[in-house]
Amino acid sequence: MSLLTVGTVAFDSIETPHGQVEKVIGGACTYISWAASYFTENIHLVSIVGDDFPTGELNMLVQRSVNMEGLEVVHGGKSFFWSGRYHDNMNNRDTIITDLNVLADFNPILPESAKSAKYVMLGNLTPAVQKSVLDQLDGSQKLIALDTMNYWMDIAMDELVEVIGRVDLLTINDEEAKQLSGENSLVKAAQAIHDMGVQYLVIKKGEHGALLFSTDDMFYAPALPLTQVVDPTGAGDTFAGGLMGYLANTDDISMNNMKRAIIAGSAMASFCVEDFSLNRLKSLSMGEIKERFSKFKHLMYFDML
Amino acid sequence: MSLLTVGTVAFDSIETPHGQVEKVIGGACTYISWAASYFTENIHLVSIVGDDFPTGELNMLVQRSVNMEGLEVVHGGKSFFWSGRYHDNMNNRDTIITDLNVLADFNPILPESAKSAKYVMLGNLTPAVQKSVLDQLDGSQKLIALDTMNYWMDIAMDELVEVIGRVDLLTINDEEAKQLSGENSLVKAAQAIHDMGVQYLVIKKGEHGALLFSTDDMFYAPALPLTQVVDPTGAGDTFAGGLMGYLANTDDISMNNMKRAIIAGSAMASFCVEDFSLNRLKSLSMGEIKERFSKFKHLMYFDML
Repeated sequence: MSLLTVGTVAFDSIETPHGQVEKVIGGACTYISWAASYFTENIHLVSIVGDDFPTGELNMLVQRSVNMEGLEVVHGGKSFFWSGRYHDNMNNRDTIITDLNVLADFNPILPESAKSAKYVMLGNLTPAVQKSVLDQLDGSQKLIALDTMNYWMDIAMDELVEVIGRVDLLTINDEEAKQLSGENSLVKAAQAIHDMGVQYLVIKKGEHGALLFSTDDMFYAPALPLTQVVDPTGAGDTFAGGLMGYLANTDDISMNNMKRAIIAGSAMASFCVEDFSLNRLKSLSMGEIKERFSKFKHLMYFDML
Repeated sequence: MSLLTVGTVAFDSIETPHGQVEKVIGGACTYISWAASYFTENIHLVSIVGDDFPTGELNMLVQRSVNMEGLEVVHGGKSFFWSGRYHDNMNNRDTIITDLNVLADFNPILPESAKSAKYVMLGNLTPAVQKSVLDQLDGSQKLIALDTMNYWMDIAMDELVEVIGRVDLLTINDEEAKQLSGENSLVKAAQAIHDMGVQYLVIKKGEHGALLFSTDDMFYAPALPLTQVVDPTGAGDTFAGGLMGYLANTDDISMNNMKRAIIAGSAMASFCVEDFSLNRLKSLSMGEIKERFSKFKHLMYFDML
């Protein structure tokens, strides 16, 4: 099935305890598309870049069967740029620079072919932009997922809640789930967020894994403990990409299949953090991905006597 | 099989967002013994209290088949007292009062019957006291577990590492694992701690669950998401009690059985936090415990296609 992803394509400069990289490829849409491309073909990417963005990088996505018709290239414009520094424990980071550049005027126009995508992943963007994408869809979608962050809860809560009410799956972190719902217990937060109209809630907990809530069931996927985490940037988007790619491929949105999709997302995220930028994601084999699935199964498996 | 537990029996005064209790029953040994008593008989408790400690509470433990021969009651002495206040998110707490009282002179003398206990759980105490217990054991133990904390790493690291080298299982939290090993990755930390002589390392992550490492395998048990956490006090000790009680009952220290034991500990801890003090732990049925085992299995289960 087809997957539409809307979000950023960007440059990142990143410093972690394991090194430093300047102006490498980043952006939610980039991570989502790469991760999803291991599971499904027929991906539509809708984003905006300046003409400073390397054509070679875009061509690589085309080779992964990503339809780039919806990528606006602004001539004379500069691509979105983010720069950050991670603390020693990798759980916290400081943003050093956020240059919106062409993203400030991002007004996504969906190509005709993307309007009927069965699966849609809306990356973290202003709720108004996310809403405009929803308005352009033809209504035939099977599952629409949305990612957001505390920043929009601080400055545009009403608009955000309205957009959330129109999607089927929401991905946020634990603090954001508490802020959005006003509840301290994640179980109660999930109930409140389901009441906003969301069928599935995925709470991302970084190195502590992810929780999936339906209205009457829950599932816990750990993060795979790794010998070395080089750079956590993009892990959340990679998780979303693996999850949505898996769903688009299997075309089954039952809770049982959502659980497998969460593991697919967790597996892809565990690769993402092993290197800077998309380096690790660009060089994966299906054998490596299947092996990692098995590692998750083993990590979580116990037989009851 | 017999289980020996050495640690505190105490009073706690606790404030959480869900209420406040004054001078309720607490202490590592108390939580460990209660939790273990649902899985095994023949528990030996070695601790110290003042004569201010209610006889009724001690009798309840005797009724749970806990041998109290090793409990020293200091006439005219006051029991260990701790008072703390939890922050809104329950992950952080401030200690308000720590009155060691009789604990300051705790010099545990093992009764003859306890020296051959097959399973031993050393609660968090000064490494010197833990060492003196190890010196009194008859050497026939099948598994010795030890709990400790960052405080001893700060002031008595050498003594602590020596004691750790003499036990089979260590329980600490993630920050402590990093401090003890000097490694930021938990996988590397586990390797370093195995090199200290420990066969099994359990990293407690509170609301994020627990990780179990053997030298060549690992297992992740989530914490059960709960509608309401009333008071996290004693959860770590309850976890250890469930784990050790399960091991003593099954008498199998293979990695596969350790995984089940970790779930037993997690299940008992999930009850502990549902009320203040030992209130919830005192009123459990085996049916409730089995039901919670099943909830963990369900929370972690996915079928691979």
